[in-house]
Amino acid sequence: MKRLPLFALAGAAFALALPAAAQFAKPEDAIKYRQSAMFVQNQHIGRIAAMASGRAPFDQAAAVANADVLTVITKLPWAAFGPGTAGGNAKPDIWKEQAKFKELNERLMADTEKLAAAAKTGNLDALKAAVANVGETCKTCHDTFRKK
Amino acid sequence: MKRLPLFALAGAAFALALPAAAQFAKPEDAIKYRQSAMFVQNQHIGRIAAMASGRAPFDQAAAVANADVLTVITKLPWAAFGPGTAGGNAKPDIWKEQAKFKELNERLMADTEKLAAAAKTGNLDALKAAVANVGETCKTCHDTFRKK
Repeated sequence: MKRLPLFALAGAAFALALPAAAQFAKPEDAIKYRQSAMFVQNQHIGRIAAMASGRAPFDQAAAVANADVLTVITKLPWAAFGPGTAGGNAKPDIWKEQAKFKELNERLMADTEKLAAAAKTGNLDALKAAVANVGETCKTCHDTFRKK
Repeated sequence: MKRLPLFALAGAAFALALPAAAQFAKPEDAIKYRQSAMFVQNQHIGRIAAMASGRAPFDQAAAVANADVLTVITKLPWAAFGPGTAGGNAKPDIWKEQAKFKELNERLMADTEKLAAAAKTGNLDALKAAVANVGETCKTCHDTFRKK
């Protein structure tokens, strides 16, 4: 325990850097990580979208469960777009237009929080509106920053 | 809203089936989903293991953040090992020894909850013990059910 103070400063820097730092052994891991997180994200939003569109029966418990997973998963990909991680389906514009990319990332997190809140109301119309917002933000970001 | 009672029964079945049902458009999606979730899982447990082994400075906030992500991610892969989703790195034994596979899955979720609790204490020795338990459960399951 005597060594803890020695770690304190480095630890603080580590914590501050956490959201955006590329904490990956190699760039390929960052690319695989963000693609993996977004695939999982896509499956869960797809299940809610299926309920919103009537392709699946509306089940509030399932909507809440899927939305709650999304609020956690949606926070993950951002940290894997650090400097030096170009590749995959990411356009180089991501690293040229960081403010715009970050804004869309934050908008998606806010939209997802609203989706989780809408799911908890049990109101299908609220869920439909919230999932449409999430989809719109996904599309805007993909149209801008994902390779065709 | 008049149609809601018609959905009630189907909805209930859907909710009950949620944890284990293969809610995937095709088996390949289930395989990609579980591999994606486990890759993300591996990255986050790796960050805590690095702190536990001294390869990275111990940062409690980062340990808590990573463990909290793990408590959510760890719940995901199970549902993607439903009937008809053999393939990838999964041994066929998974579908022959469902009770054992389920037991290991539940042990991992319990170990991960304990890891998150240990991270919150801020005690590095508690974190080391908890991460070792998680690693042991991962290894036991992989040795038994993952292709070499």
